[in-house]
Amino acid sequence: MKIKQYIPAFDWLPNYKREWLSGDLSAGLTVGVMLIPQGMAYSMLAGLPPIHGLYAVTIPLIIYALLGTSRQLAVGPVAMVSLLTAAGIGALRPETPEAYLLLAITLAFLVGAFQFLMGVFRLGFLVNFLSHPVISGFTSAAAIIIGLSQLKHLLGVKIANSEHVHEILIAAAEKIGETNLVTLAIGVAAIFVIKYVKKIHKAIPGALVAVILGILAVWGFGLTEQGVKIVGEVPSGLPGLSMPAFDLGTWQALLPAALTISLVGFMESFAVAKAIQSKRRNYQVDANQELIGLGAANFGAAFFQGYPVTGGFSRTAVNDQAGAQTGLAGIISAALIVLTLLFLTPLFYFLPNAVLAAVIIVAVAGLIDYKEAVHLWHNDRSDFWMLLATFIITLTLGIEKGIGAGVVLSLAMVIYRSVRPHVAVLGKVPGSGFYRNVERFTNLEQRPDVLVVRFDGPLYFSNLNYFKDKINELAARKGPQLRLIVLNAESISHIDSSAVHALEEWVQENHRRGIRVHLTSVIGPVRDTLGRWGLTDVVGAENFFMSNQQAIDALDGKVKEGVASEYQEYVLQTS
Amino acid sequence: MKIKQYIPAFDWLPNYKREWLSGDLSAGLTVGVMLIPQGMAYSMLAGLPPIHGLYAVTIPLIIYALLGTSRQLAVGPVAMVSLLTAAGIGALRPETPEAYLLLAITLAFLVGAFQFLMGVFRLGFLVNFLSHPVISGFTSAAAIIIGLSQLKHLLGVKIANSEHVHEILIAAAEKIGETNLVTLAIGVAAIFVIKYVKKIHKAIPGALVAVILGILAVWGFGLTEQGVKIVGEVPSGLPGLSMPAFDLGTWQALLPAALTISLVGFMESFAVAKAIQSKRRNYQVDANQELIGLGAANFGAAFFQGYPVTGGFSRTAVNDQAGAQTGLAGIISAALIVLTLLFLTPLFYFLPNAVLAAVIIVAVAGLIDYKEAVHLWHNDRSDFWMLLATFIITLTLGIEKGIGAGVVLSLAMVIYRSVRPHVAVLGKVPGSGFYRNVERFTNLEQRPDVLVVRFDGPLYFSNLNYFKDKINELAARKGPQLRLIVLNAESISHIDSSAVHALEEWVQENHRRGIRVHLTSVIGPVRDTLGRWGLTDVVGAENFFMSNQQAIDALDGKVKEGVASEYQEYVLQTS
Repeated sequence: MKIKQYIPAFDWLPNYKREWLSGDLSAGLTVGVMLIPQGMAYSMLAGLPPIHGLYAVTIPLIIYALLGTSRQLAVGPVAMVSLLTAAGIGALRPETPEAYLLLAITLAFLVGAFQFLMGVFRLGFLVNFLSHPVISGFTSAAAIIIGLSQLKHLLGVKIANSEHVHEILIAAAEKIGETNLVTLAIGVAAIFVIKYVKKIHKAIPGALVAVILGILAVWGFGLTEQGVKIVGEVPSGLPGLSMPAFDLGTWQALLPAALTISLVGFMESFAVAKAIQSKRRNYQVDANQELIGLGAANFGAAFFQGYPVTGGFSRTAVNDQAGAQTGLAGIISAALIVLTLLFLTPLFYFLPNAVLAAVIIVAVAGLIDYKEAVHLWHNDRSDFWMLLATFIITLTLGIEKGIGAGVVLSLAMVIYRSVRPHVAVLGKVPGSGFYRNVERFTNLEQRPDVLVVRFDGPLYFSNLNYFKDKINELAARKGPQLRLIVLNAESISHIDSSAVHALEEWVQENHRRGIRVHLTSVIGPVRDTLGRWGLTDVVGAENFFMSNQQAIDALDGKVKEGVASEYQEYVLQTS
Repeated sequence: MKIKQYIPAFDWLPNYKREWLSGDLSAGLTVGVMLIPQGMAYSMLAGLPPIHGLYAVTIPLIIYALLGTSRQLAVGPVAMVSLLTAAGIGALRPETPEAYLLLAITLAFLVGAFQFLMGVFRLGFLVNFLSHPVISGFTSAAAIIIGLSQLKHLLGVKIANSEHVHEILIAAAEKIGETNLVTLAIGVAAIFVIKYVKKIHKAIPGALVAVILGILAVWGFGLTEQGVKIVGEVPSGLPGLSMPAFDLGTWQALLPAALTISLVGFMESFAVAKAIQSKRRNYQVDANQELIGLGAANFGAAFFQGYPVTGGFSRTAVNDQAGAQTGLAGIISAALIVLTLLFLTPLFYFLPNAVLAAVIIVAVAGLIDYKEAVHLWHNDRSDFWMLLATFIITLTLGIEKGIGAGVVLSLAMVIYRSVRPHVAVLGKVPGSGFYRNVERFTNLEQRPDVLVVRFDGPLYFSNLNYFKDKINELAARKGPQLRLIVLNAESISHIDSSAVHALEEWVQENHRRGIRVHLTSVIGPVRDTLGRWGLTDVVGAENFFMSNQQAIDALDGKVKEGVASEYQEYVLQTS
């Protein structure tokens, strides 16, 4: 029982069913075939030689298959994390390719450490702070940045790496005259092949076809002489052991990037894992164990010449559709890459960079989600502005600031909403005991001497003045006839010490004016707090009621015994 | 009507009643007498010559009397703002007393500008973000820092200004051998006089008595020869015009201090103004107009050689008790100070600094509030930790960081609470239509095929996974008999777009499993959102009910017509 908790693979491995094998095999091979071009392309996006993208899908995949809780998640390099890697390392301006690689390996180590520790300390819930609009705005902007970052490979010109859209566009505009037309033709053709070969038959691996055609074209027509940039020598064999830098200065410099990748990578991975699991429903995905699994996979990347990895959206979907039943599919993908590393790397010599750029561009184009923005514009204006703000900040100030600003903005909006909660004056639905908002329903009955009011939200330090002002204003409108305020507290989900003080003052103020205050439908945790602070006595335990109707009946001296008294007994008990 | 809105004094000035005069006169004189020692003492605390504390209670008091909405608020230098002034200016290390004064005047100008603009832009609500525990922890820590900052005057030694307790204590420990015993004796005696003269008769102004006795002692016994530090030459006459520095660099350097003083000063002032008004109840205090009044008063301080002012706690209480009816009391206090400036300043030559230190120490000692901490420890543990954290951070990292950390921590706690709201499984109170938490009430009736569950809080991006996991877990406990989940949404105060997506998935998931979902008591704003996103159709408009009982009756095919159908008509209308 215990070991299953730490190594979820022991849930399926000992009980492996023969009928699962065909699904795992076909899914594993399909994803493996996708991984060859994608691994190389994303590695290039991360600023590394293509081979490290293949190294990153050997040991990490096997580790995740053992430690992860999802049975369909396809781990490996993904576009967003690769871009974040490039941005994070680029900022440190390493001088040699070796220094760059060391930073990438160290980054993978730090990401692994963060994710692993977050899992151990059960911080998986942090991913919940990324709202749908923030993710959508951020992803669209990141997709645009990633797509534009490939412009240089598509045009065959030199443009400095940047995560700021305007910088890339200005640099590209300056260099557009130097475009290598043959390179551009290859890139555009590759985009068409990848996008439209799928339309002929779903099972054809478009990116691999483009890779093969690209290699054949460059080799057959001798296009390197036309200035087409190619991948060149790709080392053969398995990745050797590598060692991250254990150096506090380096760690500190990589810290922001490592934190962002840990969170963003986990978020992307967890979202897709959860989506597939809720469809499959024969196992559970656990956020904290996922963090441990991904963290360990990143350790694998760090010690075997890879770079940060996570669960990818598109490959996971393919893995699921191709019938993956267990983590074995991932192990089979890894095996295919191992075979490729051992025997096929010489074939990639003539692979044009433009084809890899095409692979990336097609992958990220699908991530630009303008439909969500349109939906939000029509249905939830404040969430629309949140999406737009995140989108614009990401485009202009960069990826890390974009996602940070998105989180801060959306949390600020949560606070802002709770500062001025919805307040409703209630009237009686004729011929029933129900009370509803008088502004929403017609023909509700209101008494001139009673104000029934519902406060929709927690009552705490930042909204207690609003509470008092609002209800006092409503009470003032009733005029001197007012004898009773019924505070329907059913939707006051929490009350803090500041609010208890304020509520006490407010109740006493009303008592001085000769106005009774009855509380109805107070939920348990709030009753506890009121009891502890002695507010039950200030209001009077006899002034707590199950329903608005009882509270009003009490004013008229006709409280029914039974339910009400039982409820009040409870109130007295806790006071 | 209009002019009264901008100059609230026009509310009472034209209708001034003769019977108010005696109260205003006695209160004005009492507060004026308090102001003489306090103004000088706080000015010294702010690092300025004592005279500027008197200048600060001339024009500013008159301006506030005209523009402020409180009729009892006593504006002038206060301990907290004086300390913040010293800390803010001290950090810039001005080299001459003239440079120091210029910074103080500029600070008053910036505080005035911030407060005035905050009032104009109606940002008075910002003060609501300071919770009771944060204010309490912050005030206690600031009181300790202020008290310790006077140690040097009490011991008669030189200690560098600091807002870090450990620095003050270490410096004091090093210098304790150099203590001037006569100075210490004067200081301790003054503390006793101030504290215990009040016990003889409430109306005796203890601080003024100590000042007079101190002056007489130093003059009579020639104590300056014993090394007792005195105030020395105090210029005579009214303050001349002064001009703040209009220099962006200076402004930027003073920005953090100006912002903190604006907010903290306003908070202290508004809290006491509101407390007095809620007792008096013959006028209204308005947060935004208060900001305008205080802002204008600070402009007065800036242009007449003062330094930042605000409404003080203790003087306001005295003003109120002494019978102040209108702002005229403040104008009378100012007149008394003007007379003092014109004729009495030579008398202060021999006033020992130790007496002014005693005035400050006695004033702030009353602000250390350990009782609130004890209350919170017993009644609200999380608010207790908030208080303690604010207290410790203020003591160790300084005043500005302390209050900033307090605000951030308490808002983080608000968010944290909303991430895991209270969820209750409800059962039927026998013989009634009420449903209550089965863990709180005994003998509630539950059906094996129905889960009634209430989610207490807004449903939004950060708690939607918790929502799904929690309710799915409760549903799983019911086993395969479960046919209906009744989601009692009365306390779901808000729903955002992320949660709408999640709710839609969750409802469809349940439908696929053959479980119906009924929503009850959904509040208006949430119904609107659900309608806009088409979720009313996904759930089925016929599955919205007024009450849990109706929702269950519908499962049994015995829905009552009338109320329920009217409610559903509304739901259909908006969908």
